[in-house]
Amino acid sequence: MTRKEAVRKIVGDRPLRAREKGKAYAPANIALCKYWGKRDEELNLPVNSSLSISLGSLGATTEVVAGGDKDTFRLNGEHIEGPAPALARVSAFLDLLRPSPDVFYHVNSTSTIPVAAGLASSASGFAALALAMNDLYDLNLEGKSLSIIARLGSGSASRSIYHGFVEWQAGSRDDGMDSYATRLTDEWRELRLGMIKVSHGEKAVGSRAGMKIAKETSRLYRAWPEKAAEDLLSLKEAIHLKDFHLLGRTAESNALGMHATMMDSWPPILYWQPQSVEVMHQIWRLRSEGLPVYFTMDAGPNVKILFEENSRADVEAAFPEVTVVAPFLHP
Amino acid sequence: MTRKEAVRKIVGDRPLRAREKGKAYAPANIALCKYWGKRDEELNLPVNSSLSISLGSLGATTEVVAGGDKDTFRLNGEHIEGPAPALARVSAFLDLLRPSPDVFYHVNSTSTIPVAAGLASSASGFAALALAMNDLYDLNLEGKSLSIIARLGSGSASRSIYHGFVEWQAGSRDDGMDSYATRLTDEWRELRLGMIKVSHGEKAVGSRAGMKIAKETSRLYRAWPEKAAEDLLSLKEAIHLKDFHLLGRTAESNALGMHATMMDSWPPILYWQPQSVEVMHQIWRLRSEGLPVYFTMDAGPNVKILFEENSRADVEAAFPEVTVVAPFLHP
Repeated sequence: MTRKEAVRKIVGDRPLRAREKGKAYAPANIALCKYWGKRDEELNLPVNSSLSISLGSLGATTEVVAGGDKDTFRLNGEHIEGPAPALARVSAFLDLLRPSPDVFYHVNSTSTIPVAAGLASSASGFAALALAMNDLYDLNLEGKSLSIIARLGSGSASRSIYHGFVEWQAGSRDDGMDSYATRLTDEWRELRLGMIKVSHGEKAVGSRAGMKIAKETSRLYRAWPEKAAEDLLSLKEAIHLKDFHLLGRTAESNALGMHATMMDSWPPILYWQPQSVEVMHQIWRLRSEGLPVYFTMDAGPNVKILFEENSRADVEAAFPEVTVVAPFLHP
Repeated sequence: MTRKEAVRKIVGDRPLRAREKGKAYAPANIALCKYWGKRDEELNLPVNSSLSISLGSLGATTEVVAGGDKDTFRLNGEHIEGPAPALARVSAFLDLLRPSPDVFYHVNSTSTIPVAAGLASSASGFAALALAMNDLYDLNLEGKSLSIIARLGSGSASRSIYHGFVEWQAGSRDDGMDSYATRLTDEWRELRLGMIKVSHGEKAVGSRAGMKIAKETSRLYRAWPEKAAEDLLSLKEAIHLKDFHLLGRTAESNALGMHATMMDSWPPILYWQPQSVEVMHQIWRLRSEGLPVYFTMDAGPNVKILFEENSRADVEAAFPEVTVVAPFLHP
């Protein structure tokens, strides 16, 4: 099934009439149980279910206006000119709802994610764009459909249409109509995420390529789906019980397990830089000294620290460069 | 089965009469397919078969003399006093052949492994001690039996009783009588190993504890035995064909896979220091520039570079601190 056919299953054949402008906000998210491996490359259908926490006011606000004679894409005030991969990816996503080939869009997106946070922007970017298109065409789609459409732009975008804790169920259907995210009702107001950006000179392998290589070449990856399934259950239990140690431990082990499958790939993929390892050892040292801190990492060199508000002063003392996010305290 | 019972199966009940002195040399070895995980803690029986290369003239020479009223252990001229763990481990090994509780030994061992190589010494140490005891008591044991006895001191010592490429077959018997090493007939005179010692302040988890934690807690470890079995076949093929890329690639992936299972453990085990990661990235950069270099790592922060003689100048230029070993050019 193509992505366009998947969208037609949701939107149907109704005539699309653009309003003056579509606009939406979507938060970035950090996975505590990672999306790692696709069962369908075209539809971004995952091997395993995942669970994330949205970052409140850190995210993307996107406006879409229909018009012009080509797609344009402004990101944080800067025009992204073709043949930039970012513009191509946005245009390809717009194709999914474009009523005819001579309709074009002006997309204007601004991100509130500080550069110092070192966070990827595709999840919030495609989620905001999906929501903005829903607004532009007055589609009034509900969460499930919006999550599916966002997923077609970027897998993890399926989770960024919600605030709070979000679970993306892998589903098993070939058309992906059962592969979407839902929000958990639990809140955790004391929870904090601390972003440590690790500078690096190396060009990293993208996460899309990374998960493909891991799935195809790592022997240890064969045990990943089972690990992810167990971690997901533990995380949901931890969230339900507000058991911070269970949450932190599971998230940290899940992230390390994901990186483990990359190292076991051929060619080996090591997103870590020397400073990443330094930060990890420092977190383990702090934990051995009694500070309840854990970490997670995505397909990159940056480290995201998990802690609660009452440890904030200690975390900031140990990592003066940290950017702290309070996911449940957004306005 | 106890270790002592295992030794009795080999030596039988013959009366042991000590000569004036027993003396032997055993080389250190570096595994290209790692010994990682025990199926029997007492007898050091491994989960998977492994394959190593002995380091020629880098190793241990050990003399044993029966006498005195307690065991003594001199290592590189220094008396190791009880209750040092090293002395306790040597004494426990001597127990396996001690004819009666009132017989004691003076063990004098000297190592030719430069400190700058950052190599573990237990494999060559226990292999040399097993060979020296065979000499002391004139047991005339053949390789299989010597390998089994050395294994009871330290798993990887089972491989250090031979030079060259050595395969340790895991075996399946409970008494371990089919778990011993044999030497491959192949030689590879151009092969080189470059040792990079990474300084580190952290106290690492010992490899004995590391493999236990990985086997018991890592989900990804479940796929390790299968990976190791495939890697072993690839390595034997590479050695047979003198296919350096296949050898290097398999050894590197095997080492990374082993480290991957450690990271996936709980608590996570990361032997790598920032400098380890720096050296890895540097090796990958050199390889991407066309230099045929690969690496392996054991349960520690040090990196061992695999290359052939015709790349030596380039390796030494990139890593001025490297200690180069020519495994097949020993005197």
